[in-house]
Amino acid sequence: MAATTPVIVTLTTDFGREDFHLPRLKGSLLSAHQGLQLVDLNHEIPPYDIVRAAFVFKRSWVHYPEGTIHLISVNDYYQPRGRFLAIRHERQYFIGPDNGIFSLIFGKLPSETFVLDGYTKKDALSTIYGRAVAHVARQKPFLEIGLPATKFSERLAFQPVIGPNYIRGTVVFIDRFDNVTTNITRELFEDVGHGRGFQLLIKRMSPIDGLSFRYHDVPEGEPLCRFDHDGFLEVAINLGRAATLLSIQLEDMVQVEFVN
Amino acid sequence: MAATTPVIVTLTTDFGREDFHLPRLKGSLLSAHQGLQLVDLNHEIPPYDIVRAAFVFKRSWVHYPEGTIHLISVNDYYQPRGRFLAIRHERQYFIGPDNGIFSLIFGKLPSETFVLDGYTKKDALSTIYGRAVAHVARQKPFLEIGLPATKFSERLAFQPVIGPNYIRGTVVFIDRFDNVTTNITRELFEDVGHGRGFQLLIKRMSPIDGLSFRYHDVPEGEPLCRFDHDGFLEVAINLGRAATLLSIQLEDMVQVEFVN
Amino acid sequence: MAATTPVIVTLTTDFGREDFHLPRLKGSLLSAHQGLQLVDLNHEIPPYDIVRAAFVFKRSWVHYPEGTIHLISVNDYYQPRGRFLAIRHERQYFIGPDNGIFSLIFGKLPSETFVLDGYTKKDALSTIYGRAVAHVARQKPFLEIGLPATKFSERLAFQPVIGPNYIRGTVVFIDRFDNVTTNITRELFEDVGHGRGFQLLIKRMSPIDGLSFRYHDVPEGEPLCRFDHDGFLEVAINLGRAATLLSIQLEDMVQVEFVN
Repeated sequence: MAATTPVIVTLTTDFGREDFHLPRLKGSLLSAHQGLQLVDLNHEIPPYDIVRAAFVFKRSWVHYPEGTIHLISVNDYYQPRGRFLAIRHERQYFIGPDNGIFSLIFGKLPSETFVLDGYTKKDALSTIYGRAVAHVARQKPFLEIGLPATKFSERLAFQPVIGPNYIRGTVVFIDRFDNVTTNITRELFEDVGHGRGFQLLIKRMSPIDGLSFRYHDVPEGEPLCRFDHDGFLEVAINLGRAATLLSIQLEDMVQVEFVN
Repeated sequence: MAATTPVIVTLTTDFGREDFHLPRLKGSLLSAHQGLQLVDLNHEIPPYDIVRAAFVFKRSWVHYPEGTIHLISVNDYYQPRGRFLAIRHERQYFIGPDNGIFSLIFGKLPSETFVLDGYTKKDALSTIYGRAVAHVARQKPFLEIGLPATKFSERLAFQPVIGPNYIRGTVVFIDRFDNVTTNITRELFEDVGHGRGFQLLIKRMSPIDGLSFRYHDVPEGEPLCRFDHDGFLEVAINLGRAATLLSIQLEDMVQVEFVN
Repeated sequence: MAATTPVIVTLTTDFGREDFHLPRLKGSLLSAHQGLQLVDLNHEIPPYDIVRAAFVFKRSWVHYPEGTIHLISVNDYYQPRGRFLAIRHERQYFIGPDNGIFSLIFGKLPSETFVLDGYTKKDALSTIYGRAVAHVARQKPFLEIGLPATKFSERLAFQPVIGPNYIRGTVVFIDRFDNVTTNITRELFEDVGHGRGFQLLIKRMSPIDGLSFRYHDVPEGEPLCRFDHDGFLEVAINLGRAATLLSIQLEDMVQVEFVN
């Protein structure tokens, strides 16, 4: 029997990998529809941490091809209301709990957002998700498994504070290489800065006063700041561990002061 | 060239992921048969721990589709006898060492259990498994790679102790969310309890005296007990870490006392 | 639409799994070419550690089928020159940074080694790799994406020191089971030893004076040495943790003294 091209399904969970939750979910998905290509997006989200999940996911999904189904299962076991959303946006699909994570990912929710129905309180999470993923994989209409969402949980991300000559942001992510990502975007930086010189202040370190393009634009061991490929201001040390060496932690303040 | 639907092969190992054992095994499988869909079931089994492997696997395999091949490679490097089993059961396939793990998974071994033969003492584990998986994936008869098993290693799981008014079980698993699974099943609970009220005692905490259905049936931070989707009695804290907060460890005693 | 057999792409990175780097790379690859089967070879390489990456990879790639594309992304964010190589060798393909890792893997570089071109300083790593992988997956000639490499970075691995009656090697890997791999090969052992008896000395433990074939050739808890399936001399304890119990660390010296 000839197979059709498999449908890519990415999985983002707070299940970890030491457990039975993840293999059960994978089995349920593979049983619900023949011909899925499962891709582990991230399973190391700390339990219930929808802010971190949203950040990692937001920086990943745009790189996937049209037709990809993204399943996000983070902090959904504990939802009192137990609502789930299915979204179509830029030719990709998104399925997950209505716990605010999609507002962290998309800001304003996409127009094609549906609330799943047709399941009972007794259905396992993997059954609910299996059914929804299989339905979307078969390219059947959302309306058969849910209704257009008129309201949904919202959760706001920290936004930088700005003045005429400064931007005060926060550290929102520290990656495996101890590079530090802030919530200051290139767009905001240019809006406020108008091309002026600046000093970046974080913790007690000496100010950084210029933008680098790549890590090795400064000597080994020197700190630098740059915009990463998604346009977020990042603080790093060339071939070094910025967060550890500079004692930077999540939610620490980062201040950019523009020179008059 | 048109491809047929790939055969799903799940992998459960104590290899971890930092090592060369797992990528070698994957390569050998992919070389042995074109068109396998490898699914990582669990590789974080602590070295040699067939009890944990059996528990995680037992709660996962039933969710996989017909025709799935489950390869279990736990504590098989150290087997003195070096025997391997291939099993067909409920339209799925199971391949792994004859070290007692299959008795922990199935209790009594399924009727279609075969002992692999045709390999030599010098063959690498990945060669032996690659050959067996490829054979099964091609839907060829077990008899060509082994003989019906007449005896095999057995290993018994802890069973609860019961009296007319109590069940004394043990903690058999602690998941990533610090939920605590016991070996007390709903069936046993109903057999002994006959619908009577009860108190659940574990460590020095106050007794829990009712069943919840979902975690949020109690206020945030409160302990609860419930039957999970596989029918095991579970102790948890709504939005909290039960095992850590209550100092519960594997093999701790859990007592259910029914009220007369 | 009928699908062709997917092309296997293995991924070896120092990205870890908690991060957005790996899911971005996977998405870019899946977007660049429809019909890739991604296989996680190893993502737990410590940041920048091309020596460990080379060791794990060297022991894995030969087990993969013809036509496999191996993508190695370790320590490539920090390359000043930013060169990437594409190699064809024994009917498999290898793509990664020109930072010395391929000399650690292959010793002398294979004849079909190309330097990638046609990308700009602004391209993301995942874009560069996505383009190269898609090109190779389509079986198009290397010359369209690069030029034959005339020089490349070299990095030398530690080699054992030998005398008429001894081999002095080093510990090059400790696996998940705390087995200890040295850089002493069976070939070297036989060349120097000529079948003589020997004593293996490591740390302060009593000498080991014979080769075992399998772990359980010695009683449980006893140390042993053996050649592993790739022909490297390994020190282990039957059902025990050699590295921990014997306080063995990476780069420790191992001496084999042959008896006259």
